[in-house]
Amino acid sequence: MQDFIFQSPTKIIFGKSAENQVGDEVKQYCDKILLHYGGGSIKRSGLYDRVVKSLKAKGIEIIELGGVKPNPRLSMVREGIKICRENNINFILAVGGGSVIDSAKAIAAGVPYEGDEWDFHTGKANPKNVLPIGVILTLPATGSEVSASAVITNEDGWYKESMNSDLLRPKFAIMNPELTYTLPDYQTACGAADMMAHVMERYFTNTPHVDLTDRLCEATLKTIIKNAPLALKDPNNYDVRAEIMWSGTIAHNGLLGTGREEDWGSHKIEHEISAIYDITHGAGLAVVFPAWMKYVYNINLKKFIQFSYRVWDVEVDLDNPESTALEGIKRLENFFREIGLPTRLKDMNISDERFEEMAQKCTMSGPVGGLKKLYKEDVLNILNIAK
Amino acid sequence: MQDFIFQSPTKIIFGKSAENQVGDEVKQYCDKILLHYGGGSIKRSGLYDRVVKSLKAKGIEIIELGGVKPNPRLSMVREGIKICRENNINFILAVGGGSVIDSAKAIAAGVPYEGDEWDFHTGKANPKNVLPIGVILTLPATGSEVSASAVITNEDGWYKESMNSDLLRPKFAIMNPELTYTLPDYQTACGAADMMAHVMERYFTNTPHVDLTDRLCEATLKTIIKNAPLALKDPNNYDVRAEIMWSGTIAHNGLLGTGREEDWGSHKIEHEISAIYDITHGAGLAVVFPAWMKYVYNINLKKFIQFSYRVWDVEVDLDNPESTALEGIKRLENFFREIGLPTRLKDMNISDERFEEMAQKCTMSGPVGGLKKLYKEDVLNILNIAK
Repeated sequence: MQDFIFQSPTKIIFGKSAENQVGDEVKQYCDKILLHYGGGSIKRSGLYDRVVKSLKAKGIEIIELGGVKPNPRLSMVREGIKICRENNINFILAVGGGSVIDSAKAIAAGVPYEGDEWDFHTGKANPKNVLPIGVILTLPATGSEVSASAVITNEDGWYKESMNSDLLRPKFAIMNPELTYTLPDYQTACGAADMMAHVMERYFTNTPHVDLTDRLCEATLKTIIKNAPLALKDPNNYDVRAEIMWSGTIAHNGLLGTGREEDWGSHKIEHEISAIYDITHGAGLAVVFPAWMKYVYNINLKKFIQFSYRVWDVEVDLDNPESTALEGIKRLENFFREIGLPTRLKDMNISDERFEEMAQKCTMSGPVGGLKKLYKEDVLNILNIAK
Repeated sequence: MQDFIFQSPTKIIFGKSAENQVGDEVKQYCDKILLHYGGGSIKRSGLYDRVVKSLKAKGIEIIELGGVKPNPRLSMVREGIKICRENNINFILAVGGGSVIDSAKAIAAGVPYEGDEWDFHTGKANPKNVLPIGVILTLPATGSEVSASAVITNEDGWYKESMNSDLLRPKFAIMNPELTYTLPDYQTACGAADMMAHVMERYFTNTPHVDLTDRLCEATLKTIIKNAPLALKDPNNYDVRAEIMWSGTIAHNGLLGTGREEDWGSHKIEHEISAIYDITHGAGLAVVFPAWMKYVYNINLKKFIQFSYRVWDVEVDLDNPESTALEGIKRLENFFREIGLPTRLKDMNISDERFEEMAQKCTMSGPVGGLKKLYKEDVLNILNIAK
């Protein structure tokens, strides 16, 4: 086990009608906020009205910035920073999924920073002060409601880059599984793939002796694998939605990565795909992850056998351990297909035309990944397996 | 799944020589501390010197209070409160195991409180302000390094009572598995039993649909079951000690209980035993827990079968599911015996002489436990199974 520092201080308020507590939570920080959200779904569902009512009951002044798109854009982050500065706003409430939360985090880091916000995403600067943010989660997937990272797309060149700092972790996350009843099936499935990828990016490591976190990873994966298909069959099942929502948080609050080298190669490859083709992150991961696995499984065969055995209940074939490892990858792929996700780039009408460009951008700051360091050639090979 | 609020903000600094960072951590809070510890072991091991060196390097003034006993006493808490008030101390550093940490928490709650500290343990008052505390953990067992509770023994009548408040959670916990190499085997084993009990008090619940936390509980139990015997065989194995230490924290930071009714009946019964006989808490739990299980397993047979199947790899006997449940309890008992723990009261020379008194004190504020509400008669029955 490696040395580590871990702190995940976000207050989780989980349960039915939890959003009605937002006024009380925000009031502990300020009397004026930026209310940040995406498309019109929170208005259609009535969530917007309930949130505004709870905030106004506590006398909180609201300035709005809606319209965050999936793969959230730097231009909107810049707009948010401007609004906060002009209106002396010191708290951002994100109501939505990972895109809205990431956009809120980037704004929160950018407001007190004198340089260009994009510096945080290129490694030129690290945030020193970040405005506090709160979250009402509507789409369980990215874990951004507790995570220390934010991914933003710069339209100037279509670069999709993350920033990381413990200061980005939200002060509170309000999580009501009922809010996810109306999610389209495809979003539910993409969310499941995203959270599974967050677990697997940590699970497949070369760090030896990580018993506890291995098992915590397997526990989280098995829960998602059981409940995601149930949510598609029975979208209004509270308990099923609750299992998925809580799994998405545990998948990415940092606990599952404690003491181990993480990978994140698949995420970086996927970011290049979604930066260009604007696909949903979870769908891209459902394509890239199995391809990556097929390319690297021999580097830590034991861990891939364990994955098959413990997560997918594959019987270990002692005469042919490699086949056991491959069976786990096959079952993962089948699972993604079963819940309606693509598992090949061609399923999303993506050809090999821009592979070279993606592999180039993915590795332009050096190789990516932990289990195996991936150079440009490796990324190309993985994209070819995925095509 | 039930609604819940969860926040476990303690900063964990985990790894080799981590104690040398204590000066930096404390410095973020104050320049003067109460250094609280137990017997002389931290002086013999050299830990005391390293801690003092790190603190002095940051110019931190130290007032000491050593001598905390297992089952920490109210009289020492009162002494600590007095010292802090007289010396204007606003931070307590606990160096030790659960007893030292619980004592520090009680002092931290008592200093700003005008009434009698014991009020917090009888439910007469809840702490509103608590001094910040930091921890250097030397004995993984109680999870007090992250938990929201403290258990204190009042010598006046030998009452052992807990207090609970999120304000009690330490600001930081420094965890170096190397510090546990020199633990006596019995303490290592008692620690394992204590953390397993913390998991099981949450695991055995009537709350339906708690897939994720069930599996997280099982993950933690399996890790302890694998590594505790290894630590006894190879006490200086860093990785084994690290798995145990991290498991003890995860067992009791609150995560495993999210969304479910917890039990705590076994803990309450054990507290009555250790209040009178001054035995080690973990040893008492190794005796009480299996007895409690035998008394209640029929109330949620499915959960006990799942425990056997998933935690102990018992094959499910579909013709006789009860035998599957009982096999799990038997394996738990065998495990406790294997690691050198008592599993009957007579193993600790405790007769039935004071059963009546213990059952009376245990239930004097009403029935205890969640899976089954235990009245005085039930507690007597469990003690009789355990004798």
